[in-house]
Amino acid sequence: MSIHSFPSKLLENAVFEFAKLPGIGKKTALRLVLHLLKQDAKEVNSFGNAIIQLRNEIKFCTECHNISDSEICDICSNPSREKQTVCVVESIRDVMAIENTQQYKGVYHVLGGIISPMDGIGPKDLNIDSLEQKIAEGNIKEIILALSTTLEGDTTNYYIFKRIGKYPIEVTTIARGVSIGDELEYTDEITLGRSILNRVQFEPSVAR
Amino acid sequence: MSIHSFPSKLLENAVFEFAKLPGIGKKTALRLVLHLLKQDAKEVNSFGNAIIQLRNEIKFCTECHNISDSEICDICSNPSREKQTVCVVESIRDVMAIENTQQYKGVYHVLGGIISPMDGIGPKDLNIDSLEQKIAEGNIKEIILALSTTLEGDTTNYYIFKRIGKYPIEVTTIARGVSIGDELEYTDEITLGRSILNRVQFEPSVAR
Repeated sequence: MSIHSFPSKLLENAVFEFAKLPGIGKKTALRLVLHLLKQDAKEVNSFGNAIIQLRNEIKFCTECHNISDSEICDICSNPSREKQTVCVVESIRDVMAIENTQQYKGVYHVLGGIISPMDGIGPKDLNIDSLEQKIAEGNIKEIILALSTTLEGDTTNYYIFKRIGKYPIEVTTIARGVSIGDELEYTDEITLGRSILNRVQFEPSVAR
Repeated sequence: MSIHSFPSKLLENAVFEFAKLPGIGKKTALRLVLHLLKQDAKEVNSFGNAIIQLRNEIKFCTECHNISDSEICDICSNPSREKQTVCVVESIRDVMAIENTQQYKGVYHVLGGIISPMDGIGPKDLNIDSLEQKIAEGNIKEIILALSTTLEGDTTNYYIFKRIGKYPIEVTTIARGVSIGDELEYTDEITLGRSILNRVQFEPSVAR
């Protein structure tokens, strides 16, 4: 069934907006919108406003590029976190995944992506310059590379290693307890926590 | 992975709101919200506002209970539609499905559900009184029962038939070209269109 007979412009508009979301087709969009129509106006207003407020008021931490409600995120501004240890991750989701393990006491650096020539993403599209700058300032002892164990993850690890190899810091990578080919965020907490604790010296020659 | 370490209250709030939608878990909600964060503020505002506007401004047609931007919907207010033929459907989605076939020239009556004792939905929860009142006014020649071919659909058909049996009108049902057990909205347009054209006299004794 194609949907081309909307009884209302308002309905059509809302369905059209929902269907722009990834993985949401027109049928699902219609289902979600009709669900919202059955809810209290107060509920629906708070849904709409939560989205608008998020987009307009959210900030990115100037230290680590993590999502934040303020200039410096809760992790970077926490005095009990070890600032000399920086865990390099692809995305905000990975920060959340590692935080959930409650095994890590350092800080993060969110790259905002991963080197992927197929998707047209190069080093310049990622927060790598700010990482190098942070290291050049001399207050960092260890960089933990915690990218997904995919080809793109390995490529990015290697690129970062070449960029920061000249600095007198330790470069480690999370233990390969994470299965090859798996995305970080789908890994169970125990495996992920252990792979942080058992992190080892990064050796670019031994790929995988 | 459980999600309990949100880096931002705004993010947590938006994810929480999305996860209230049917079929959307916390992981999917987070994915959708992070997608929205990457979009232009203008896009996200129009998404949020479309939802708020829909809920606050939508109307239900006083004639047929269909969704509408005005007091009387586009179908009921269209002078070329045959007002003497009323197609009884479960929901707005079914109106859209039948309209898409472009085979039907009458008007609709949306019940707003189906009799389902398991879900605690009885005749009083549906727009059946207004249907009988409409018939009692004497301007209707034919009622087409176009409910899903499920047990609940059959029960509702039978209940309505008993209520309106005393009026001098024809009561038909869509041809059972629609497979038994299928939901109306998933039926292909050709089958659905044909089943409207080949509608037959409703015979309550011949269940299925």
